[in-house]
Amino acid sequence: MADPRFFKVAGPFSLEQLAEISGSEIGATSREEQIFSDILPLDSATPNDVSFIDNRRYVEAFKSTNAGAVVVHPELVGQAPEKTALLITDNPYTGYAKLTQAFYPQNTPQEGSVNARAIVDPSAKLGKNVSIDAGAVIEAEVEIGDDSHIGANAVIGGGVSIGNNCQIAANTTLTHCLIGSEVIIHTGVRIGQDGFGFAPGMPRHTKVLQLGRVIIGDDVEIGANTTIDRGAGPDTIIGSGTKIDNLVQIGHNVQIGEGCFIVAQNGLSGSTVIGNFVALGGQVGVAGHLTIGDGAQVAAKSGVSTDVAPGTTVAGNPAQNARDHWKGLALLKRLVKEKRGK
Amino acid sequence: MADPRFFKVAGPFSLEQLAEISGSEIGATSREEQIFSDILPLDSATPNDVSFIDNRRYVEAFKSTNAGAVVVHPELVGQAPEKTALLITDNPYTGYAKLTQAFYPQNTPQEGSVNARAIVDPSAKLGKNVSIDAGAVIEAEVEIGDDSHIGANAVIGGGVSIGNNCQIAANTTLTHCLIGSEVIIHTGVRIGQDGFGFAPGMPRHTKVLQLGRVIIGDDVEIGANTTIDRGAGPDTIIGSGTKIDNLVQIGHNVQIGEGCFIVAQNGLSGSTVIGNFVALGGQVGVAGHLTIGDGAQVAAKSGVSTDVAPGTTVAGNPAQNARDHWKGLALLKRLVKEKRGK
Amino acid sequence: MADPRFFKVAGPFSLEQLAEISGSEIGATSREEQIFSDILPLDSATPNDVSFIDNRRYVEAFKSTNAGAVVVHPELVGQAPEKTALLITDNPYTGYAKLTQAFYPQNTPQEGSVNARAIVDPSAKLGKNVSIDAGAVIEAEVEIGDDSHIGANAVIGGGVSIGNNCQIAANTTLTHCLIGSEVIIHTGVRIGQDGFGFAPGMPRHTKVLQLGRVIIGDDVEIGANTTIDRGAGPDTIIGSGTKIDNLVQIGHNVQIGEGCFIVAQNGLSGSTVIGNFVALGGQVGVAGHLTIGDGAQVAAKSGVSTDVAPGTTVAGNPAQNARDHWKGLALLKRLVKEKRGK
Repeated sequence: MADPRFFKVAGPFSLEQLAEISGSEIGATSREEQIFSDILPLDSATPNDVSFIDNRRYVEAFKSTNAGAVVVHPELVGQAPEKTALLITDNPYTGYAKLTQAFYPQNTPQEGSVNARAIVDPSAKLGKNVSIDAGAVIEAEVEIGDDSHIGANAVIGGGVSIGNNCQIAANTTLTHCLIGSEVIIHTGVRIGQDGFGFAPGMPRHTKVLQLGRVIIGDDVEIGANTTIDRGAGPDTIIGSGTKIDNLVQIGHNVQIGEGCFIVAQNGLSGSTVIGNFVALGGQVGVAGHLTIGDGAQVAAKSGVSTDVAPGTTVAGNPAQNARDHWKGLALLKRLVKEKRGK
Repeated sequence: MADPRFFKVAGPFSLEQLAEISGSEIGATSREEQIFSDILPLDSATPNDVSFIDNRRYVEAFKSTNAGAVVVHPELVGQAPEKTALLITDNPYTGYAKLTQAFYPQNTPQEGSVNARAIVDPSAKLGKNVSIDAGAVIEAEVEIGDDSHIGANAVIGGGVSIGNNCQIAANTTLTHCLIGSEVIIHTGVRIGQDGFGFAPGMPRHTKVLQLGRVIIGDDVEIGANTTIDRGAGPDTIIGSGTKIDNLVQIGHNVQIGEGCFIVAQNGLSGSTVIGNFVALGGQVGVAGHLTIGDGAQVAAKSGVSTDVAPGTTVAGNPAQNARDHWKGLALLKRLVKEKRGK
Repeated sequence: MADPRFFKVAGPFSLEQLAEISGSEIGATSREEQIFSDILPLDSATPNDVSFIDNRRYVEAFKSTNAGAVVVHPELVGQAPEKTALLITDNPYTGYAKLTQAFYPQNTPQEGSVNARAIVDPSAKLGKNVSIDAGAVIEAEVEIGDDSHIGANAVIGGGVSIGNNCQIAANTTLTHCLIGSEVIIHTGVRIGQDGFGFAPGMPRHTKVLQLGRVIIGDDVEIGANTTIDRGAGPDTIIGSGTKIDNLVQIGHNVQIGEGCFIVAQNGLSGSTVIGNFVALGGQVGVAGHLTIGDGAQVAAKSGVSTDVAPGTTVAGNPAQNARDHWKGLALLKRLVKEKRGK
């Protein structure tokens, strides 16, 4: 069971409720009337708990589990222990994800409240059931949608707009941005500061003011201490459903499509355009003014310096077709061995 | 026009004022008496707006622009549309940068004010027209120069000195540092925490206290969530006019000269010395105790493990003369192709 | 002498006290009765100061120093100037580290105090002599041990436990974590936010709630703006005595042993297990679900994609045995030269 200091378990749920939440069908079982009180791994679940298997590596744990019910792919149904109820679905990991949200609801319905120690400009417009924690600063003309939460000591700059049911964590800074609904912004995130723009000169460079914004779609998640600069004139854009990890840098005028995964410590240089459902591994760097096509994948630590075609996988620095990259590394290894043989 | 929720346009300006601000000469024109209300890209500017071109790629947009005036290099004057007034200068991008500052002044002259919810130690010394936002904490013996601004929830540690006309953004932390004038420090920046110094040992390492400071010159800009550790005994030094991007790590005792560009996610290890007008691409790592000479350039993602001579360009990991690095990559590519041919 | 705006010198200390603090033996000397007022480098120390040498590179400075006493390795005793008292130890750098702590005590004993502008939930339990600075927010059921300090505008989330004599710097965010004693957490650190976990899907990915915690041992130090995600179900664990630098990313379920050094801008992917006394150079990336054995070393900027055996040194991307890596680079260099010769 998750540590009750930090997590409050909801439920219990009936088997039928679990099936509905997880999008599963119930296999033949004697447990139709049972209720379930928690969600746990296969090896620690009891008959009162639901568990899941999404990877063949865990088949042995599945065979010997004491879980009362398990979310499972149709292919693994034959491996189930006799007394376990089965919740059968083609996407058991998604089913598990939805059950975690049901057992441990993060946005427990409660009345919104503005802490007496929050500092909210009188011109700010707050929706229904908005909660604002102590020390948060909400500047002039900010708009915050229904059911959204602003964490302690966050700073929301003048004119910023935040949609419904957003979670803006503690110690964040949001300026010059328009944010959709169902967005999660983790602690320490910086959005909307002006980008790195200078007209180089001697003895001094001249600052180029950044006159754009950051536009963030719906259902976006942005990891801790990530930075997203506002556009120089055009906007910086993050498409709906995109998930960004911690300590990522996104430069001015970058456009990211929908449903992308941007893993930790990526750096995306200015004016680069990234399509839909693109996946960038950790610590990737992408040069400026490039296009990465829909569905492309970039291996961790790659340095992307040319456009990437849709649906392709690239690796290396400079990044190239991943197979060519691995062949080059293998060849170099073989040459070293041959030299040693002589 | 920039989003009025976030930007307030100044002006309008006469053609003569635009020429003076941008350092340009006015070409022959029928628009000498006109006034201009905004600065916009070539393709969206109207006859009431000024625009600019600094790159031959945009010549077609230049030829067909409706802009009332354009800042332009002498070489492109022949391509101008007939009715457009020309502001001719050898540095059109610098001219544009200065015009953005005139149309969208960031430090609108206003009386300084200390928010009632800021927390300012009585021993702090504030210059004229200082403004301090809600939740900012100014500790003992801090000195802040004229016209400087401290953002919401920033923490300025005891004894810190900040010059005139500085912008210290929200949620920053400054300790053990002396900061010049005209400095911009973006949100989430950490300056002056003690560096990574330990006497290794078993079973425990021993902490080496860091007894130096961070000294920052004039006209420096430091990007969001960047960290600059204080010196171990000597100081960490950032020279005047240097521009540092987001999420950069600068170790203890590092010395950076004047006018450098340090792009996002660089990591500079302790005691390294960087000359004047050096440019480091994104995600570069520099080992400790090295010297990088004046005017040197380091390609993005390079790992610098030896000194770099003034004026040279290096690339790769370990970084070497950039041409040698590219030759090695090209050779490896050719060898892979040859193998495939067999 | 360290800048008195930022550092308060303690002492003075007798030679005998210096020997005891630094774990040294006093060599034959005429200065047995002297007292010492500061600790300074060899070239600036006066007869009233103590200094140290831990590196043969500085022998010339040692020979000509005016320092009243020097912490020194037995091998260098013969090089000492005549009038200098010697504090002889096999670990002069550790001796120096302990002397810096004595001359410049960071936790000056003082009565704890909760600033009137701090916001402390009535259910929080504070030990003896706890100090909490202005703007800090301490949420429900938090426990803070004796002599610990919470910096300005830090946010300590509900249920978090902090041990004795910890220093939690300004503008940090701690949630869902249990922290040992003698821990130093630098400014801007984020601990306990939920990790990067999604069940991928079209058109939307499904968030997998992260139900674990972050567990941090004793004597750990964590650098500025570093992020440590909580576990997905298991916990994320940082062992006692481990030192983590700035801007490091530690993913969910990562386990790090005791006494490790994790240099700046490392990225450790989820569920990776790192042994004791492991050293990771700067900007290293480690893939998920790997094991790095006790005492292993990883060169800066490496990309670790397979397990690393205990006691070995690896380098490159993908990381391999360091000698093989350097041989491959040397071979490629030679081939380029040969081509040029033709």
